[in-house]
Order: sequence, then structure tokens, then C-alpha cells
Amino acid sequence: MTTASSDLLAALRGRYATKAFDPTRKIDAATWEVLAQSLALTPSSYGLQPWKFLVVTSPDLKKQLRAVSWNQAQVEDCSHHVVFLARTTITEADLDRLVAATVAARGVTTESLAMYKGFMVKDLIAGPRAQHIQAWATNQVYIALGQLMASAALLGVDGCPMEGLDPAAYDRILGLEGSGYATKVALPLGYRLATDKYATLPKVRYAASELIEYR
Amino acid sequence: MTTASSDLLAALRGRYATKAFDPTRKIDAATWEVLAQSLALTPSSYGLQPWKFLVVTSPDLKKQLRAVSWNQAQVEDCSHHVVFLARTTITEADLDRLVAATVAARGVTTESLAMYKGFMVKDLIAGPRAQHIQAWATNQVYIALGQLMASAALLGVDGCPMEGLDPAAYDRILGLEGSGYATKVALPLGYRLATDKYATLPKVRYAASELIEYR
Repeated sequence: MTTASSDLLAALRGRYATKAFDPTRKIDAATWEVLAQSLALTPSSYGLQPWKFLVVTSPDLKKQLRAVSWNQAQVEDCSHHVVFLARTTITEADLDRLVAATVAARGVTTESLAMYKGFMVKDLIAGPRAQHIQAWATNQVYIALGQLMASAALLGVDGCPMEGLDPAAYDRILGLEGSGYATKVALPLGYRLATDKYATLPKVRYAASELIEYR
Repeated sequence: MTTASSDLLAALRGRYATKAFDPTRKIDAATWEVLAQSLALTPSSYGLQPWKFLVVTSPDLKKQLRAVSWNQAQVEDCSHHVVFLARTTITEADLDRLVAATVAARGVTTESLAMYKGFMVKDLIAGPRAQHIQAWATNQVYIALGQLMASAALLGVDGCPMEGLDPAAYDRILGLEGSGYATKVALPLGYRLATDKYATLPKVRYAASELIEYR
């Protein structure tokens, strides 16, 4: 097995939903920068990146968020509490933002992207996905969650994916109302306490033979 | 920067939505086994794993699926066409399956997990998420998509995440009707053609400073 393969499997097997973080251990700036880049590099449908990520380190804010996260201690004890936001709607301005970024990155003309924009309009604004655009944007956010969890595991950073929170209360506390973004899920990141007994429990996964079928 | 960090960033920066696969190159068994493990190790809410993954390598089936995937050539030319399915409903049987797997993996009693099961019932079956259970299950599937894309990138395997497909037609072709699982998204995997011009286009991502806010 290659080193890349064994490192990846060790990381994915070693990670777990951390119950007890060491509140004294912080993610250093260099490691955080890699995780921030991993977030920003996340793939999304059409490359639209219909998201934002709030990174909460303020003790006061963490305390407020813990109170609306089923009182889970990880929110306060983690190093970086990452909150995943999805766009609440997709408008032509979102498409134009992507087109402008593409023009800037690739040195092409706006006109050359007219057909691409037309596809997006037909699908996301005027088409079948328009009826479910929040669900669609939320799906993209979960790609970011998946990529960030895998990335953290590879860097030896612990995390605890968290749907057990009150999104509306998060939006209120974080001042998101009217921003066009809404809270979907969170991932406190940091380092486990040596005494976290969940770290050594065997992982519960269905057998690959139950989950994967070949055709 | 650590080796883990630089390897991760190189992989995430190097990957792209592959337009042209080399139809003669196949993912070897050892590499595929790592990707299959990555799929099976994906984290999910409550650990419920409300998914299945169909891996299509049959040329005839790929051809049929291409026809209902906006005729995208990647479906036929890839090595392994991975189709992500979500559970269409969550019943008490799903919870009991997880409880039984936990008992088997951790050597605990069914009774000791009664409170955990009760939480899941209150949230997923009798609670607020019950109304949106398909969306919830689909979110989990996108974690798997994110983890598999990152894993493939780390192993030098190319992919093209694909929402541009007709899920109902996939379900029909793959015989999923009545199975309790439905098609959500796909990821053809394989190796790029050297001539795929998309491989060298600059990546279009908003700046981390636009996407990430610190509080």
C-alpha cells in the first residue's frame, strides 16, 4: 500500500466525534491556515460556492452558542468552532459574481461565459432546482463539511460534526438575519482530552459489502 | 509546513472536475479498495449511514446512464462510476440496525443504548427532522461525496462530481424502485486524458477572506 493510502486510511479510521476537547489546546496559526484553505478549496455545483464559514473563537460567543447547541460542551471547549452557512436564495447576482471571478482568474471574456451562465439560470433560477434551492445550497455545504472533516483528520485535528443545534438561534446570535446566509451545521475543531473515552471505542460502520454494490 | 499539510493542499488544489477521462485507464484493485474504505468510513449524523453506493463498471449500464446524465461522456469513459443513494425514509428498523451494529462492535447491551435510540426516535422519526427526512439523508450523502472527492485527490485519482443527471431515470435503470434508496448524485472516477484542457485552467474560488469570517 502506498504511503498516501495508508496515511489516508489511518486518518479516516482514527477520527471520531470528539466528546471532550482539551480547552487549553488551540490550533496553531499554520495548521488553521491549511484548514481555512481546505474550506475555501471545497468543490461545489457549478463552482458557485453558495456558502460562508464563521469561525468562532470568542469565549463569550461560544458560551452563547453552546446554550443553543443542546448544551454540548464541545462548543465552548474546542479551539475553533466552525459554523457552516448556506445561501438562502440564488439570484442572478450570485451567477454574475461567479462569472466575474472566472473572468478574473482565467482571463476570459464575460461574453464567452454567457452560455454557462444561461445553463445556471435555467437550472437554478428558472428550472427544477429553483423550488428546492435552499436544500441544494445546503447539500453543497455538506461537501465542505465532509472535506473539512477529512482534512482535519489528516492534520491530526479533532472535531465533532454537530447538527444538534438551533439554526434560528445561531442566526440570531451571529447576526445573520437579512444577510442572505443561514446556519446549517457546525464543526467544533481542536484537540481531544486524553481522558475522552469515546476516542477508543470501536468505530461502528456497516460492512463495505452491505454499503457498496457493484454493477 | 508539515508534509501532511503540503500533501493535502497539493491534492485539493490539483483536483478539478475532470471533463475528459482516459477510457483505457482503470483504477487498480488496491487503490479502489482504499476508496471503498473511505466511503464506508464516512461520518454521518448519529452514525446512521443512511446511504448506499453503487459502483458501475459495466459498459452497457454506463452507456444507459450516460443517456440520462445530460450525455456527459465522463459516465462512459471513467473507470468507476459511483452513484450515491440516500434512504428515502428512516424507520425504527434503521435505528435498530445501528443499535445492533453498535452492540456487535462494542460489546455493549441493547438496553444500554435505549436512551440513544430514544434520542433518534424523538429527532428523526417523531421530531422536527421527520418532515424533511429525505433532505436530511441527502445531506449525509454529500458528506460522503466530499470525503470521497478529497480521498480520490489524495490518491491521484480524478473525478467529476455530477448533479446533472435524472435521478428518477437512474433509479429505474438501476432497479432501485421500492428499494428504500434513491439516487442523489454521482462521481465518475478514473484518470484524466493528457489532453483535457480543463486540467490546467486556473481554479475559480472566492478569496478565503470573502468566505471565512472570524468572530
